[in-house]
Amino acid sequence: MAVLELYLVRHGLAGQAQASRDDRLRPLTRAGVRRTRAVAKRLLALGLRLDGLLSSPLVRARQTADVLHAVGVAPRPKESALLAPGGDFEEFLTWLARWRRRGHARLGLVGHLPDLSTWAGRFLSGEGRPRLVLKKAGVVGLTLPSRGTPLGRSSLFLLVPPRYLL
Amino acid sequence: MAVLELYLVRHGLAGQAQASRDDRLRPLTRAGVRRTRAVAKRLLALGLRLDGLLSSPLVRARQTADVLHAVGVAPRPKESALLAPGGDFEEFLTWLARWRRRGHARLGLVGHLPDLSTWAGRFLSGEGRPRLVLKKAGVVGLTLPSRGTPLGRSSLFLLVPPRYLL
Repeated sequence: MAVLELYLVRHGLAGQAQASRDDRLRPLTRAGVRRTRAVAKRLLALGLRLDGLLSSPLVRARQTADVLHAVGVAPRPKESALLAPGGDFEEFLTWLARWRRRGHARLGLVGHLPDLSTWAGRFLSGEGRPRLVLKKAGVVGLTLPSRGTPLGRSSLFLLVPPRYLL
Repeated sequence: MAVLELYLVRHGLAGQAQASRDDRLRPLTRAGVRRTRAVAKRLLALGLRLDGLLSSPLVRARQTADVLHAVGVAPRPKESALLAPGGDFEEFLTWLARWRRRGHARLGLVGHLPDLSTWAGRFLSGEGRPRLVLKKAGVVGLTLPSRGTPLGRSSLFLLVPPRYLL
């Protein structure tokens, strides 16, 4: 298999949570959409082209993924419950091993905290470390080795808050 | 003590090592100076102001630190053998504890691989993990806790290659 670059993207700025409304349907704010689009355009200008994009089904994540697709950074996103809050990391690893067999080299994931940070930690140290501060519409870049388990054997090449990308 | 933000900066692009010349005197290339200055200016525009800047005494590092000072990101750099290749991390921690007592909040370090990456790992996980890919003139940002040991208790908020800053 080839080395895999994994880009973890936190959803953009969304409205306040309200007890009376379903949190899964909470959309990006207008400013959230604008900022997410600016970040995506900058990533495009920097040459980023993803071979695949997996998104949490929650509206604020799916909208973020749609923006990445719309500006040309990624193909049409696929929704996956694995990326919803509390998604199963072991199942994701199984999915990922299958996906990599097709020869893909760059995958984007759009999801939530704390899972994205915990998952990154699993790749980097095998445990939930280190603590990564990931802002909304922020991006983490990991390189997974070409063979063997990626757990504790991946490296971090990017952790960038959105304001560095505006 | 206040929370401390620690910025680790790898020296800019330098000429090729030559067996016949002292590696410590190897300067930045002209392109290395230009790129380092562009990175420093972008950091300034993003609002970065360091309270102190410690540099390896090697010429390529000291030149990088001088650029950070010249554009206004940092006060005049102080050379320290602790930041030369193979510098003593425990001694640095002692120095740092003293420096923090003066109430400073943002420190920059200009140095070399693999030490900068190993030091970051000590702060993040207590061990040398995770593997950080730090390009020349790239920047790592760590937040150290306000009290207690920073080892394994710091968090990473930035890892940015220079091309994201041009």
